[in-house]
Amino acid sequence: MEEIGFLGMGIMGKAMSMNLLRHGFKLTVWNRTLSRCDELVEHGASVGESPAAIIKKCKYTIGMLSDPAAALSVVFDKDGVLEQIGPGKGYIDMSTVDAQTSSKISEAITSKGGYFLEAPVSGSKKPAEDGQLVILAAGEKALYEEVLPAFDVLGKKSFFLGPVGNGAKMKLVVNMVMGSMMNAFSEGLVLADKSGLNSQTLLDVLDLGAIANPMFKLKGPSMIQSSYSPAFPLKHQQKDMRLALALGDENAVPMPVAAAANEAFKKARSMGLGDLDFSAVHETVKGSKSSG
Amino acid sequence: MEEIGFLGMGIMGKAMSMNLLRHGFKLTVWNRTLSRCDELVEHGASVGESPAAIIKKCKYTIGMLSDPAAALSVVFDKDGVLEQIGPGKGYIDMSTVDAQTSSKISEAITSKGGYFLEAPVSGSKKPAEDGQLVILAAGEKALYEEVLPAFDVLGKKSFFLGPVGNGAKMKLVVNMVMGSMMNAFSEGLVLADKSGLNSQTLLDVLDLGAIANPMFKLKGPSMIQSSYSPAFPLKHQQKDMRLALALGDENAVPMPVAAAANEAFKKARSMGLGDLDFSAVHETVKGSKSSG
Amino acid sequence: MEEIGFLGMGIMGKAMSMNLLRHGFKLTVWNRTLSRCDELVEHGASVGESPAAIIKKCKYTIGMLSDPAAALSVVFDKDGVLEQIGPGKGYIDMSTVDAQTSSKISEAITSKGGYFLEAPVSGSKKPAEDGQLVILAAGEKALYEEVLPAFDVLGKKSFFLGPVGNGAKMKLVVNMVMGSMMNAFSEGLVLADKSGLNSQTLLDVLDLGAIANPMFKLKGPSMIQSSYSPAFPLKHQQKDMRLALALGDENAVPMPVAAAANEAFKKARSMGLGDLDFSAVHETVKGSKSSG
Amino acid sequence: MEEIGFLGMGIMGKAMSMNLLRHGFKLTVWNRTLSRCDELVEHGASVGESPAAIIKKCKYTIGMLSDPAAALSVVFDKDGVLEQIGPGKGYIDMSTVDAQTSSKISEAITSKGGYFLEAPVSGSKKPAEDGQLVILAAGEKALYEEVLPAFDVLGKKSFFLGPVGNGAKMKLVVNMVMGSMMNAFSEGLVLADKSGLNSQTLLDVLDLGAIANPMFKLKGPSMIQSSYSPAFPLKHQQKDMRLALALGDENAVPMPVAAAANEAFKKARSMGLGDLDFSAVHETVKGSKSSG
Repeated sequence: MEEIGFLGMGIMGKAMSMNLLRHGFKLTVWNRTLSRCDELVEHGASVGESPAAIIKKCKYTIGMLSDPAAALSVVFDKDGVLEQIGPGKGYIDMSTVDAQTSSKISEAITSKGGYFLEAPVSGSKKPAEDGQLVILAAGEKALYEEVLPAFDVLGKKSFFLGPVGNGAKMKLVVNMVMGSMMNAFSEGLVLADKSGLNSQTLLDVLDLGAIANPMFKLKGPSMIQSSYSPAFPLKHQQKDMRLALALGDENAVPMPVAAAANEAFKKARSMGLGDLDFSAVHETVKGSKSSG
Repeated sequence: MEEIGFLGMGIMGKAMSMNLLRHGFKLTVWNRTLSRCDELVEHGASVGESPAAIIKKCKYTIGMLSDPAAALSVVFDKDGVLEQIGPGKGYIDMSTVDAQTSSKISEAITSKGGYFLEAPVSGSKKPAEDGQLVILAAGEKALYEEVLPAFDVLGKKSFFLGPVGNGAKMKLVVNMVMGSMMNAFSEGLVLADKSGLNSQTLLDVLDLGAIANPMFKLKGPSMIQSSYSPAFPLKHQQKDMRLALALGDENAVPMPVAAAANEAFKKARSMGLGDLDFSAVHETVKGSKSSG
Repeated sequence: MEEIGFLGMGIMGKAMSMNLLRHGFKLTVWNRTLSRCDELVEHGASVGESPAAIIKKCKYTIGMLSDPAAALSVVFDKDGVLEQIGPGKGYIDMSTVDAQTSSKISEAITSKGGYFLEAPVSGSKKPAEDGQLVILAAGEKALYEEVLPAFDVLGKKSFFLGPVGNGAKMKLVVNMVMGSMMNAFSEGLVLADKSGLNSQTLLDVLDLGAIANPMFKLKGPSMIQSSYSPAFPLKHQQKDMRLALALGDENAVPMPVAAAANEAFKKARSMGLGDLDFSAVHETVKGSKSSG
Repeated sequence: MEEIGFLGMGIMGKAMSMNLLRHGFKLTVWNRTLSRCDELVEHGASVGESPAAIIKKCKYTIGMLSDPAAALSVVFDKDGVLEQIGPGKGYIDMSTVDAQTSSKISEAITSKGGYFLEAPVSGSKKPAEDGQLVILAAGEKALYEEVLPAFDVLGKKSFFLGPVGNGAKMKLVVNMVMGSMMNAFSEGLVLADKSGLNSQTLLDVLDLGAIANPMFKLKGPSMIQSSYSPAFPLKHQQKDMRLALALGDENAVPMPVAAAANEAFKKARSMGLGDLDFSAVHETVKGSKSSG
């Protein structure tokens, strides 16, 4: 594959870029705060001075931004993607954004003759480092096929889901289920503890049963220690819950459990935990006293 | 091991008894509706005419009843366990009941000199047939050790959790998390479908991610078909949610997600779905019209 | 009317007794902690040494206890109501208890030949002092008619609702609606404040609209001050939510809003606020930081 | 006052216009479907052919549209308000919209030199007919003072709440509390009925207590009859819940009860009840069978 551009060196973008470099891809990277690119440069990446400069230089550019506002900004702002995109160039937005944001970006890029693919991922820091993401692509099928070599490095599996918007939607559905599960898990951990059961034994029991899953196994031990080093920041999880609920609202789908989970994440934000890992929602279930 | 008595030939009791017979245990079984014992007899089991008769005949007796009322009834009613229990005899209640019910049975049996173990299980029909249950035992440690050979056949793993009540509590915690997860999953399936995504692709994506778990894999395909053949009846799942919430109430543990899930299961009961599989809660999320 | 016995000098019992004394009734009162009867004695009440002694002395005895356990205890314990109740004597339980507790007391008393009336009230400390309670009576109709003069002093209105249990149930329904409303109100107050609106103006606006009600008017100003002097303790409100939800569970009535409110009250208990006024649930909505 | 323009002849707009006409105001009205203006014309109103035409003709124009999209459309579309607004002209938007929509309209109008006031109302059809609305105005204070004579006819009280956005926010807070209360009330009605209590007696009891309010009194009797003639359509109430929850999200305010209520309204929409009165959420609580 040709040289790839990469916009956004947050937790995810950095891990994905490092992984691409390790597999021999040539990368030109950009981040709003340029210093976050240093480590990548040490490993062989070039740096571009703006999203526009990256697009100009590379046939394919991947964006991995933290939220819809940032995803829009790198495209539409001055020195943004739009200024250089055009026929023969492809932009792949791997950020988790709502379908509306994705459509807006898609329309702008295709109206300039560029190719667009939305390709949000399932998986956080560790899977990003290990190339074990699940990639949910939608949009221009030809572009999907051209960038498959990169997707094969970044993920263990990629899906092509149809028209633009479907990648964003699939991602939201998955993250919504995950957010509710994290709340259910937190409630279980506190209930066990307050009822005189051993928390580690609960983890062992869960791991043997019908609901055993990698997330419980990975997060459980640190949650028991009240340790919430951010792999997937709580405020981003809550954003995804919000967007999933909005999608449900559009389609008249009642989602009472997701709504309760969303409010717990909001409670966590109100407690100042928004920048910790989303497993910090655990703190909302704990009481400040043992009371009655 | 000596001959084992077995009380309760519901879905679970029958599967567990068949499994014990297959592994060479000698069983004497009893059920309120005796005809449900026929298949067991064909495979070599004896039948007892009452719980008391079983206890009299067997050194160890297992009970697997559908709810706290039934669990109490086989012990305390006329011709019940209490009439024949005494020194040298052990009763192992593997039903899912609340801690209070378990304590009541424990006290009655130990006051007669008998040994008691509560040993609720995690896992439904299929794991019961395959000896893949997880057994959560609590109570008399000596009895636990004596019946380990049977537990090794019934389950892939057994835990000894301490004083009576802890088995019941652990079971409730696990089932509560499971019930909330089933709701989260149902909401996800309907949201995907109403948003124009393919339901089977959602299952594939989930199965590759951090929240992949046997329950989603097992139940997903039939839920997409709106097929809810009862492995674990919804009304029993809802009972467990209720008991777990009551345990949380005692200990001042707020569990907003479990509470929302519980109300969805109650909604399902109000729709007449109580005897179907607990995955039928899926129906509460679907609308009757596409509306706006 | 003859002399009336009165068991239970908590916040409510004391206010009701004072009111009866003020209106010329002769009272003999009892409380587990006898010193709480002192003020009543100063205003002319006699003191009885036990529930049994009160029943022996008085034709009619009112009980106003804090919860089902206490209500059962004054009847069934040593020196309790049951020891002296019999033909020609009436016991009126005005505590808020579940229908089951009420039935148990009713059966015990009627089996001894006594008359029983359950008569829980709607209204807290202030209405109790002012004789403005609403009385929800059920059970023995003849007894209801005999004690009407006392009910006319204690309440602005009394209803006879039919068989025993219906008073308790009606009370629970009303308190459940009230508990959910208090949560809705708390959420509104915090949302207004955090959104830059004046809290007092919100109270003014609410008071002019379709949902204006005495509770918002009474509690609003002190809630704005974060002042929660207990008129109706939060732990008792949460008990009523729990019992109402249990009643809904029996009848397969989904009550997602009441369930969410109940969890908020449990959260408040976990924060150590159980003994404050139930309006202290307001604190669960406030965040510890302004965060994002 | 000068002649007033009025845009939007929905349930509310029509009732308000009729009221203004009755009090001697001269009105020029407009509606997308012009036939809805006929009744007004019979009572003396003139008709304008577009929002722009109305603005051109009148010094003050009131808008009362059904949702943010419609509110934006009359301003920004071809032949809209913006084409004729300018110095010396005032536009008063009385629709219930989110703060963002309101700000967008405000900015557009003030940038053309026009005056803007947002003035959403509390109260539905009946109060609109009777001039008993509560008006929540924010924006240009001078304009507020000039249109007070009209506000005095339309409402029993008007508030000036400060900068644009505050009227919208106050309205959302009030409607959110109202929506949660309607759910609490519905749950209470069904719980009473399924528990063997008389629904009318519940209404009587509620009306005597601390939570007595005009909405319960007005809606209760028709809800018991399962009659939901739309005064305030359910889909609009749900929209307000959604916007209030979004406002809470911005400010990190957890609102679990409002969230549960919102999901119930969404459930009602999924059942095809969106065009009925918002009290039709009652139907979501009722079961299809009595089941267990």
